[in-house]
Amino acid sequence: MAIENLQDALLEELRDVLSAEKQITKALKQMAKKASNEQLQAAFEEHLEQTEGQIGRLEKAFEVLDRKPRAKHCDGMEGLIEEGKKILEEEAAPDVLDAMLIAAAQKVEHYEIATYGTLCAWAENLGLTELAQLLQETLDEEKQTDEKLTELAAQINQQAQTAQVE
Amino acid sequence: MAIENLQDALLEELRDVLSAEKQITKALKQMAKKASNEQLQAAFEEHLEQTEGQIGRLEKAFEVLDRKPRAKHCDGMEGLIEEGKKILEEEAAPDVLDAMLIAAAQKVEHYEIATYGTLCAWAENLGLTELAQLLQETLDEEKQTDEKLTELAAQINQQAQTAQVE
Repeated sequence: MAIENLQDALLEELRDVLSAEKQITKALKQMAKKASNEQLQAAFEEHLEQTEGQIGRLEKAFEVLDRKPRAKHCDGMEGLIEEGKKILEEEAAPDVLDAMLIAAAQKVEHYEIATYGTLCAWAENLGLTELAQLLQETLDEEKQTDEKLTELAAQINQQAQTAQVE
Repeated sequence: MAIENLQDALLEELRDVLSAEKQITKALKQMAKKASNEQLQAAFEEHLEQTEGQIGRLEKAFEVLDRKPRAKHCDGMEGLIEEGKKILEEEAAPDVLDAMLIAAAQKVEHYEIATYGTLCAWAENLGLTELAQLLQETLDEEKQTDEKLTELAAQINQQAQTAQVE
């Protein structure tokens, strides 16, 4: 498909992020299973629910554009998840592994922050206010999740650092 | 290699981001060539120079840890660059293509913001102050680059949106 205008680019990016979100739901289940810290486990499970809501919001976004919600395989997320899978296979002290899981999750969050940031800017530029608002809600959630992970990391890194000294 | 402690995790992450930075230098050259907007082209070229400095800083970081600067293939960056390559092959109006190039570049920047954020937190936790300061310098540069791209996008998106109306 040739990209003739900014709305075509927006549609392509929506398809990319729909694929990304679907890939994330699978990965989050595995990450929640592997996490040792209960708060981290809960954070992953909570974000899984949130991600399902975000997929619903994306489906609405396609509706607003009068297009079918068709995902287009997201290579970026595939790479990030591949990186995360390698961490799942690592043999490491539980606290250290938790710290590494947070690192992987924050890479995923930042992918989404960048992508929804672009989508919001494009939707606003095109005067698609309803769409921009929908996407802004998800962008805000992603930023909150990233901040929450930073807070959890402060606590878990401390434990991981102590683990080393023992 | 088994990850026994947080310092092992830090070393693995340094190897990952060294690979990521090296992959980025190649991609930035192609992106600068493909960009139509002169300011965007200049921004990519400037960031290329900056990335070379960041690689130098990473080499210093390995020195601080008394380890050889050995890169470990970064799957996350490979995916992001794969995504960027597809944009380079797109047939699109120049302004729209520039907007898409910025989107791809911001995904790369956010990967680095997440990674250097983690690295700084781990180095601080381990009491590796010199290392934390080195990495913080790069983190600040990545955030500035991301902001600069957001500013450029505001202008380019406007032109891309007008292109559509013509």
